[in-house]
Amino acid sequence: MKPFMDQNFLLRSDAARTLYHDYAAAMPINDFHCHVVVREIDEDRRYDNLSQVWLSGDHYKWRAMRLNGVPERLITGDAPAYDKFLAYAKTVSRAIGNPLYHWTHLELQRYFGVSEPLNEDTAPAVWEQANRVLGDGLTTRRMILNANVKTICSTDDPADDLRYHRKLREAGDFPVRVLPSFRPDQALEVRSPGFTDYLRRLGEAASVRVTGLDTLREALASRLDVFDALGCRVSDHALSAVPYAQCGEAEADAILRAALSGETLDRRQEEAYKTYLLTWLAGRYLEKGMIMQLHLGAMRRVNGAMTRSLGPDTGFDSVNDLSIAEPLGRLLNGINDQGMPKTVLYCLNPKDNYVLGTMIGNFAEGGLAGKMQFGSAWWFNDHRDGMAEQMTTLANLGMLSQFVGMLTDSRSFTSYPRFEYFRRILCDIIGTWMEEGEIAPDMPRMGQLVQDICYRNIERLFER
Amino acid sequence: MKPFMDQNFLLRSDAARTLYHDYAAAMPINDFHCHVVVREIDEDRRYDNLSQVWLSGDHYKWRAMRLNGVPERLITGDAPAYDKFLAYAKTVSRAIGNPLYHWTHLELQRYFGVSEPLNEDTAPAVWEQANRVLGDGLTTRRMILNANVKTICSTDDPADDLRYHRKLREAGDFPVRVLPSFRPDQALEVRSPGFTDYLRRLGEAASVRVTGLDTLREALASRLDVFDALGCRVSDHALSAVPYAQCGEAEADAILRAALSGETLDRRQEEAYKTYLLTWLAGRYLEKGMIMQLHLGAMRRVNGAMTRSLGPDTGFDSVNDLSIAEPLGRLLNGINDQGMPKTVLYCLNPKDNYVLGTMIGNFAEGGLAGKMQFGSAWWFNDHRDGMAEQMTTLANLGMLSQFVGMLTDSRSFTSYPRFEYFRRILCDIIGTWMEEGEIAPDMPRMGQLVQDICYRNIERLFER
Amino acid sequence: MKPFMDQNFLLRSDAARTLYHDYAAAMPINDFHCHVVVREIDEDRRYDNLSQVWLSGDHYKWRAMRLNGVPERLITGDAPAYDKFLAYAKTVSRAIGNPLYHWTHLELQRYFGVSEPLNEDTAPAVWEQANRVLGDGLTTRRMILNANVKTICSTDDPADDLRYHRKLREAGDFPVRVLPSFRPDQALEVRSPGFTDYLRRLGEAASVRVTGLDTLREALASRLDVFDALGCRVSDHALSAVPYAQCGEAEADAILRAALSGETLDRRQEEAYKTYLLTWLAGRYLEKGMIMQLHLGAMRRVNGAMTRSLGPDTGFDSVNDLSIAEPLGRLLNGINDQGMPKTVLYCLNPKDNYVLGTMIGNFAEGGLAGKMQFGSAWWFNDHRDGMAEQMTTLANLGMLSQFVGMLTDSRSFTSYPRFEYFRRILCDIIGTWMEEGEIAPDMPRMGQLVQDICYRNIERLFER
Repeated sequence: MKPFMDQNFLLRSDAARTLYHDYAAAMPINDFHCHVVVREIDEDRRYDNLSQVWLSGDHYKWRAMRLNGVPERLITGDAPAYDKFLAYAKTVSRAIGNPLYHWTHLELQRYFGVSEPLNEDTAPAVWEQANRVLGDGLTTRRMILNANVKTICSTDDPADDLRYHRKLREAGDFPVRVLPSFRPDQALEVRSPGFTDYLRRLGEAASVRVTGLDTLREALASRLDVFDALGCRVSDHALSAVPYAQCGEAEADAILRAALSGETLDRRQEEAYKTYLLTWLAGRYLEKGMIMQLHLGAMRRVNGAMTRSLGPDTGFDSVNDLSIAEPLGRLLNGINDQGMPKTVLYCLNPKDNYVLGTMIGNFAEGGLAGKMQFGSAWWFNDHRDGMAEQMTTLANLGMLSQFVGMLTDSRSFTSYPRFEYFRRILCDIIGTWMEEGEIAPDMPRMGQLVQDICYRNIERLFER
Repeated sequence: MKPFMDQNFLLRSDAARTLYHDYAAAMPINDFHCHVVVREIDEDRRYDNLSQVWLSGDHYKWRAMRLNGVPERLITGDAPAYDKFLAYAKTVSRAIGNPLYHWTHLELQRYFGVSEPLNEDTAPAVWEQANRVLGDGLTTRRMILNANVKTICSTDDPADDLRYHRKLREAGDFPVRVLPSFRPDQALEVRSPGFTDYLRRLGEAASVRVTGLDTLREALASRLDVFDALGCRVSDHALSAVPYAQCGEAEADAILRAALSGETLDRRQEEAYKTYLLTWLAGRYLEKGMIMQLHLGAMRRVNGAMTRSLGPDTGFDSVNDLSIAEPLGRLLNGINDQGMPKTVLYCLNPKDNYVLGTMIGNFAEGGLAGKMQFGSAWWFNDHRDGMAEQMTTLANLGMLSQFVGMLTDSRSFTSYPRFEYFRRILCDIIGTWMEEGEIAPDMPRMGQLVQDICYRNIERLFER
Repeated sequence: MKPFMDQNFLLRSDAARTLYHDYAAAMPINDFHCHVVVREIDEDRRYDNLSQVWLSGDHYKWRAMRLNGVPERLITGDAPAYDKFLAYAKTVSRAIGNPLYHWTHLELQRYFGVSEPLNEDTAPAVWEQANRVLGDGLTTRRMILNANVKTICSTDDPADDLRYHRKLREAGDFPVRVLPSFRPDQALEVRSPGFTDYLRRLGEAASVRVTGLDTLREALASRLDVFDALGCRVSDHALSAVPYAQCGEAEADAILRAALSGETLDRRQEEAYKTYLLTWLAGRYLEKGMIMQLHLGAMRRVNGAMTRSLGPDTGFDSVNDLSIAEPLGRLLNGINDQGMPKTVLYCLNPKDNYVLGTMIGNFAEGGLAGKMQFGSAWWFNDHRDGMAEQMTTLANLGMLSQFVGMLTDSRSFTSYPRFEYFRRILCDIIGTWMEEGEIAPDMPRMGQLVQDICYRNIERLFER
């Protein structure tokens, strides 16, 4: 029996161990998509206890606790911090096979010097030890630096003033690049109740009154310039359904004006407007050499009652299963007609892996290696099986070696061991191939390739 | 080379073998969803030969034989019993990789003391030996008792008089709980040609004349009380497509009355009626603390000619592939607004595993562990790969430890070794994790967890 | 570490090695679906260099090169042959996990006596060695004969005059059966711009003027007779979406006449026409004992700009994801009502594996073993994972032993090692089952079964 999660965790062959320890482990981290609160970096936030770090915003953990029968009071309610931690400890000890189990123990090992398994018996000692480490100054910046992070791309609305990005940059006392990402979802959700309000806020941020397509583009372009000036290299779009309906400028303008004047739009109008605006935005990303990310297939806020009670992003989202290939192909083809930016496609439903894995090949022409990316296993797929599946699918259908690899997609500053997790899985896959005689036993070449996926490919794609 | 299907069959590590032999093997069986004929338990049916046991109703075997080129006369026709058995023996010897291969050999070992592989050469001796065992008194009750079965939930129509359930209970001479399950599919199939006839029969069973929604609900509620009085803990619904269309009481009543007066309904009306009635029934299941099962995605009677010739459930069904996430999310949300009963969701198409595996997390709040279940690999998925896939998906997306586990879904009294098959697969998965250092080497804790999945979780969910 | 791609490549157990070396390896090849240019066999084409063999038409390689950042000039452009080869060598050395990596090295080993891995360092020597072998007379016929090919079924349009098939047959100097396959896609694409032109050409080939359904059927039947006379045993249809709409003779005739007179048809009319014509053609295949192949789910020419620049089949196709179960079930049921020909169903999206794997069981009655086939992993699935997935799915859902197995689907005469690749994977699967005690340790029986899948099943299905 191998020891529990030791240094060779997930590395099942000599070749895998060499690839990981000699090549992958030391590579820095570019976390090119996450949801950290930049203020907490700027302020170098301190934590009183492990519940604050782990349980005050992590809907992954909340879901597991609910499935384990923990009452809401101990999850999002007003129970004492230790009681919540204990409820989580009990849950995680039974969460075998769930990525939370591995993430939790990796975080305990890497940040808190705890190597025993967490359960109701070990919970009191773990609580004490972790809180001592937090008290000794494990702040957000310390967590980031300990993890050898080089770049953090937060996720920001165009209407956001980016004041903490600015402050961080002006202070100049933190050696990690903290860059904004441009996520204009609200400008696309033309049928959402908050749409006109949002456009007003966007306009204020850009000092433009948005009354139609011209002024909307002006506002977005102006905000994109501000993001660009603060180092933004990445944009992001969340698309539950993939919109496609051919739409020219005049029609997009008419739909937008209809929305602004309070008219009710139909689904076709929404698709047309989104098609137009996504295509236009893609052109701007191309001009600026930015990477466009599309996150496809989430179905959000499925439990209406709990969403009304706790708000969005509290653990009531799941996987959609619409057909996406035809609209996505048409949308990307329309974008490609004007020039394709660097693009990362993510799917939430693994049934779409083959659609995305082959879609990127349709638009890879042009001589830029890795321009089109099938993004790393997203959200509900972010576990060993999901990551192995995404990587082997990508390898089978395209060029794994050009993959930009991992990102945390996390709100938490203790999530960086997910990079280690990813790298171990990657090295295990390639190591197994080598061990089995399925690829050339050329360790330096494969070591380089692993490092490319861990770090260099995204670093290179960041360049203009 | 490991011996053929010996005591360590499917158990590939020491940890797996310990988990299975020391923890799982001795657990009793709660077969909470099956299709046995209760009369055959009541009468303690005897069998003349192995063909009667195996081939007179098992469409799994019929399909395999057809694919193997066996003429229909030797499958459902009037050929002699031994000839049919021989045709099956030839088929199964070539059915490697199909669960029938393992089920057949497990049944030969566990019920008939036969350990050699079945093929055309061994068929005569197997036939003789098995028939000897049958002649020596391997009746239905003996089969059930030998398998350490504690509970059997048969599948029953609300219009059924449950006379054999009653007789069994009154006789009081059989120590196994044999409980009815409530499967009101016919009351939902408002566009089916037999609908009005069915409502008449349902009404007769309930002593209510069904003329509209009020009387339908009265009839169903009355039958549900009768089922409840006989120990029913489980309901069941088969939904080829997942219906969703908002529908109030008045509209449902109007649709029902239209159907009763012979009007032709459209698909939207069907969906509205089903949405209403499913939601109403879910409320009743909640009141009674019953478990609601939804079986999603079968496409039935695809071969019209053979269905006309042999009737339904003769091996001409297959897997559908509609989008289910959005209607299912809305249907469950509507149910949840009034209170969510304990629920098990099954899918026939494994492309839906991620939809169901994440859907259950949306409605797990409320503090009841395991209230929402992603059900065991169903029908065409009921093999090692399908079960391993379902369990690892469940683990990755939620809490495997709360899983209610296996059921036979079978018409046959020799199907109980499928529990053993499931338990071996479960122990192999968890044992491998332990052996590889991926979970804590805490055998007693994991042994308990395995026993929970094998038996205790469903036992606990049976409680009101 | 196992040696790189040696004689036991992919064979991970003793049983697998015995099955492959003692049973599978020597079996001849029936390549029952491919896209070779028959003229190149007739003329016994010679090659100047490896780029001609490998890079002048292989869109698999082109896609990988594009994803690797190779500029188009070095792919389909006018760059020198060696430069293209070098760009491919660099690409393939980084294409780990992609089937191209294995195919390339198998081809180097089997045809060119090269056993070192291809990369930018070894490229010059490989180029020289391969070109020497080509210069020494490795012609198309030599490639075919070296690979122990017994039958080649090319893919041909009914309007094709089949002159090279005829010439080959008349010359009688080539011991391999080279047979045409009947692929009437263009006669079905009633809404395609080239439809009326095509019908004119078809009519000319058949000496019939096509003015309606009668004459279309006459022309197709006449061409099918010609194909039949030249040994055609296989037909083929590519269906991006699966059409189904009930349609009688009169309606089909009206739709066809509307198309011929230049009217614009809608989707429903297209589906109706295709349903009628596919059903009628299936009847003809049944009469002639031919195998009907349906290739489902490709989405072609997604990148409009590159398609306009390079034409179709240049690497800009990908995987569709429509729902197919219901229309396919109805289409096949309609065909079955008049009699089902031997049929092979292929899907491009592996999410459809369970739909096809169970669909074939619906129509397998009639006593012909293997009449209904779930075809080998197609196109983007044609790699180890895809083939293993297809075969285990087929085994789980039906009878792997009746499987007709591999085909190249290739334009290249160096693709025959894909049969070896398939056979190694097959033997590894069955060998592992035997090694693990999951199937009877009956090597002669399993050896026969492997040989059936490698060769005899399709040979038997070729028979009238």
